[in-house]
Amino acid sequence: MKLMEPFTIQHLVIVGVGLIGGSVGLALKRAGAVGRVTGVGRSRENLMTAEARGIVDDWTHDLKAAVADADVVLLAVPMAAYDALLREMADALPADAVVTDAGSTKQSAIAAAQRWLPDARRFVAAHPIAGTEQSGAAAAFAELFDDHLAIVTPDSVSDPAAVARVEALWQAVGSRVIRMAADEHDRLLAAVSHLPHLAAFALVNAVRKQADAARDPFDFAAGGFRDFTRIASSSPEMWRDIALCNREALAAQIDAMQAELAGMKTALLAGDGAQLFEDFSAAKAARDAWLQRR
Amino acid sequence: MKLMEPFTIQHLVIVGVGLIGGSVGLALKRAGAVGRVTGVGRSRENLMTAEARGIVDDWTHDLKAAVADADVVLLAVPMAAYDALLREMADALPADAVVTDAGSTKQSAIAAAQRWLPDARRFVAAHPIAGTEQSGAAAAFAELFDDHLAIVTPDSVSDPAAVARVEALWQAVGSRVIRMAADEHDRLLAAVSHLPHLAAFALVNAVRKQADAARDPFDFAAGGFRDFTRIASSSPEMWRDIALCNREALAAQIDAMQAELAGMKTALLAGDGAQLFEDFSAAKAARDAWLQRR
Repeated sequence: MKLMEPFTIQHLVIVGVGLIGGSVGLALKRAGAVGRVTGVGRSRENLMTAEARGIVDDWTHDLKAAVADADVVLLAVPMAAYDALLREMADALPADAVVTDAGSTKQSAIAAAQRWLPDARRFVAAHPIAGTEQSGAAAAFAELFDDHLAIVTPDSVSDPAAVARVEALWQAVGSRVIRMAADEHDRLLAAVSHLPHLAAFALVNAVRKQADAARDPFDFAAGGFRDFTRIASSSPEMWRDIALCNREALAAQIDAMQAELAGMKTALLAGDGAQLFEDFSAAKAARDAWLQRR
Repeated sequence: MKLMEPFTIQHLVIVGVGLIGGSVGLALKRAGAVGRVTGVGRSRENLMTAEARGIVDDWTHDLKAAVADADVVLLAVPMAAYDALLREMADALPADAVVTDAGSTKQSAIAAAQRWLPDARRFVAAHPIAGTEQSGAAAAFAELFDDHLAIVTPDSVSDPAAVARVEALWQAVGSRVIRMAADEHDRLLAAVSHLPHLAAFALVNAVRKQADAARDPFDFAAGGFRDFTRIASSSPEMWRDIALCNREALAAQIDAMQAELAGMKTALLAGDGAQLFEDFSAAKAARDAWLQRR
């Protein structure tokens, strides 16, 4: 997308100045694309860190006051907080303000905006595909989104000017913006992100329950296990919320994984080495090709 | 285990001078625990690399000739090669030679030895829990086994002197030796190694099959997916063989994984956030505790 004129935000309000929200602030300042940035959150300590690091110019616990003269509001909070925060800001939002978010599921984000905002046409959902194991304003950095995808999911009622503004924001932080329908986003992310997390949690639990007084299977785990299960060390709260927000799509992905496992078990018990070799080879080829493209 | 006298091997024959076999050679030389090392394999180029790197003193393609005056023989080859190699060496092995191996499944290794060796009491199966993504003699290094476990799985007929000798070998390369029954080894490794590999292959296949002309889900995969699926880039041949050699234990692990996934799906569709939180938290706690212990 070409910008017709320099993209600038007069007053950005970041609700949730964590890794994602904080990195948006730093990246927009790096781009010279923002005037004043106000941070809103619950932790005074985190907000002071954000101010000390130059992520925000000022901060407050008062969401209504903060958004009253915002032109863009970014929600960068756990999915479970959307309803309460959108409800709280609804009456205070200027009529021409644009709201975007950075959450992992998009149909639920849009539904929450439609429930609470007087004009949901100016809410344009987004999901930057970037992150680290860290959290909090202390972990934020301006380069987080560089060359990563940001998926923007407008719907048929979205205001075109609001969509352009939100896409320009996600471009300005360094990401490659693509647009798709929210249900497609949720289905794709269920496959490549939500399912792997659930499968890692499931596998760790399957193994954990086999420990007894004599032996703990974990004692025999090595590097492959460590990498496979890394995402099982993710936040249980966050993943509970994502799973619940995307339950139908994720349930369908569990079915797809179960079908693959069932097929492998059948081949295994039949001693069908040719089938196993075909399954493993196809997986390896697909993953290796993906790594090459990356 | 305390050694009563310095452990030395006069003539070690390494069948398969790859990452594992080659590293055993280097580690035993580092320990001053071996006289002559002969490499046996099919690839002339790999054997020449092994000789140039000082892993072996000499090499041959002739297994019978090589083992004729060995006191210890190490099989470090794919599981699928055991039958042919044990059969070939059977008549040429000196009566007092000890044979060990480094394969990933132990009941199948012992069964192959019992099928082919005139005196299977002097075959003592072992499995060093160490490895890298690399393969071949060029990738071998003396430190590979340092502080890693080596599981030795004697059975009721094993010759005690042969067991002591094999355990001394795996200690001399730097590993921590523990002894357990072959079926227990196979069950534990099915849980922490074989199942994760199968699950990674299964997940990649589940995702791969959802690509269509418009969208490839892999395009939206990030770091979590990369780590989770790293082991899906492993050798399909090797994992076919391991899976087939350990099929009953692995099938039981697939059942355990499927039960966990089914439980999560039920909780998901019921909107049971408390259950999901409990499942995810228990998995995270178990993994984090394991990382701490490591």
